[in-house]
Amino acid sequence: MIVISEVGPRDGIQSLDFLVDLDIKKRWIAAEAAAGVREIEVGSFVNFKRLPQMHDTAALVEFALTIPGLDVAALVPNLRGAQAAVEAGAHKLSIPVSASETHSVRNVNRTHDQMVEEVRSIRAFVDAQPADARTSIEVGIATAFGCTIEGHVPEKTIVDLAERLMAAGASEVGLSDTTGYADPAMIRNRIKAVQAAVGADNITGVHLHNTRGLGLTNALAALECGLTTLDASLGGLGGCPFAPGASGNIVTEDLVFMLDAMGIVTGIDLAALIEVRKKLAADMPAAPIYGFVADAGVPLDFSQLVKPDPETGTYA
Amino acid sequence: MIVISEVGPRDGIQSLDFLVDLDIKKRWIAAEAAAGVREIEVGSFVNFKRLPQMHDTAALVEFALTIPGLDVAALVPNLRGAQAAVEAGAHKLSIPVSASETHSVRNVNRTHDQMVEEVRSIRAFVDAQPADARTSIEVGIATAFGCTIEGHVPEKTIVDLAERLMAAGASEVGLSDTTGYADPAMIRNRIKAVQAAVGADNITGVHLHNTRGLGLTNALAALECGLTTLDASLGGLGGCPFAPGASGNIVTEDLVFMLDAMGIVTGIDLAALIEVRKKLAADMPAAPIYGFVADAGVPLDFSQLVKPDPETGTYA
Repeated sequence: MIVISEVGPRDGIQSLDFLVDLDIKKRWIAAEAAAGVREIEVGSFVNFKRLPQMHDTAALVEFALTIPGLDVAALVPNLRGAQAAVEAGAHKLSIPVSASETHSVRNVNRTHDQMVEEVRSIRAFVDAQPADARTSIEVGIATAFGCTIEGHVPEKTIVDLAERLMAAGASEVGLSDTTGYADPAMIRNRIKAVQAAVGADNITGVHLHNTRGLGLTNALAALECGLTTLDASLGGLGGCPFAPGASGNIVTEDLVFMLDAMGIVTGIDLAALIEVRKKLAADMPAAPIYGFVADAGVPLDFSQLVKPDPETGTYA
Repeated sequence: MIVISEVGPRDGIQSLDFLVDLDIKKRWIAAEAAAGVREIEVGSFVNFKRLPQMHDTAALVEFALTIPGLDVAALVPNLRGAQAAVEAGAHKLSIPVSASETHSVRNVNRTHDQMVEEVRSIRAFVDAQPADARTSIEVGIATAFGCTIEGHVPEKTIVDLAERLMAAGASEVGLSDTTGYADPAMIRNRIKAVQAAVGADNITGVHLHNTRGLGLTNALAALECGLTTLDASLGGLGGCPFAPGASGNIVTEDLVFMLDAMGIVTGIDLAALIEVRKKLAADMPAAPIYGFVADAGVPLDFSQLVKPDPETGTYA
């Protein structure tokens, strides 16, 4: 079972130049959960003056918690955000720590040392909560495959950071291709290096963008390294509306199609997911959406196909 | 060294609703060859009343033969086409034989038995030529991953057809995902099955479409099975202009980017290829083009990156 973590309500819409109504966000989250999506990053607890799209994250966490079986994640850049997320009741905190220190300083105004300390503070805060309110602390190492400011990011930087973040109290680390620079060889090498450093149990996910068309290829490479969680956004939301072709996150429905075709179980109903995409496109006509399978449709006989055994890759 | 066989001048434009000038085709072929593309399918020898775009294929073969080092391929559906291609001097004949017999009958008005006989006739004709004019006969098994009319195409159908076509005189067989139905598991299973049946030396290439966004993922899966030739078209030409999102062939420049990033040598200069794309888009503004890397650009520091060893996948 592969977990697809829907990040559209956070990463997908944070850069849109119009505000999405709370009701639209709620319908979207409810519909994706009904289609079988088990984890949704519903928003971020940030400075809402800087990122007004995220002003209603607390209300979204509260709403999402009413959906049975849904894991509710929220992005938090610092202790203050973590406190708000824990107060709202989020199951998972997602903390971005950029491997490019230049990017980290520009993005959250903190160096590596400062971010490691922030994670340590968040761990102390979470551990001081009652046992039933101890959220999971997942650190996403951003720009893990290269940075648009610094360029090449050495593998050693990622590995060292992963070790320091685990020591500071992260529940686990993930790798984020913030810039869409990754390729399948880099994915394999860097995941294996981090697995060797912190243990395979402590890195289960990647966050990929499809900026250069390699998103699904990278996703498959990550799964074949043993990872089990992939971030994705419905319609590939998250592209920049001012940069033609600068597609955003990997497309949830195309990812589900690929895995479904390969016999890899996600628990998500592809046809239902495509219906959610249609509704979302109608609700947010100005948001650029991407992807292939929604337009092309699934192959004839798709649901009747004999699927390969996911372990051996062979057909029964 | 992976061979990327550019099929844009054939598969990419055959369905356009306007004729492309011979001069534009010549400039395109010359520019791609100058960018390092070593094999180009320049057109097809078919009934030009049915497919008027291909009326100048003989002139294109003649022109392409003047480019040093370029392998010149042409599609031929039957003996008459093969005779014309050999007369023009093509180095390679590409014969489509559809695994879906329904599709075969609709497309070329011939059953499997008839197509196998056609290949036998073409072999006899080629063998009767002077030794220096004996072109290679490559049979592409079309609808090898499923058919929009028949639906599921059993693996056994592909394997049996591959064996019969080799016995009839094909120099080699390839698998074509005519309908964009393939996924990486199917790619691996079917390639391995055909390799086991006819020998790995007798299947070196695949022809993939990106209809459902899995084109590059399928391409990588094919390479990892040991194949060495991938068809692709500049700008992903070959989509249907009347079906939004129905992308065509895999995009040559995105494929080169992926392989380049992975340290897999193609001999093609990506920057030069993107310039050819720009010129082609200016020459044929009404043709829909696809792809990511031309819009997004290559990563910062891309040309300076240390590349992984293509054998081991590790960095030096």
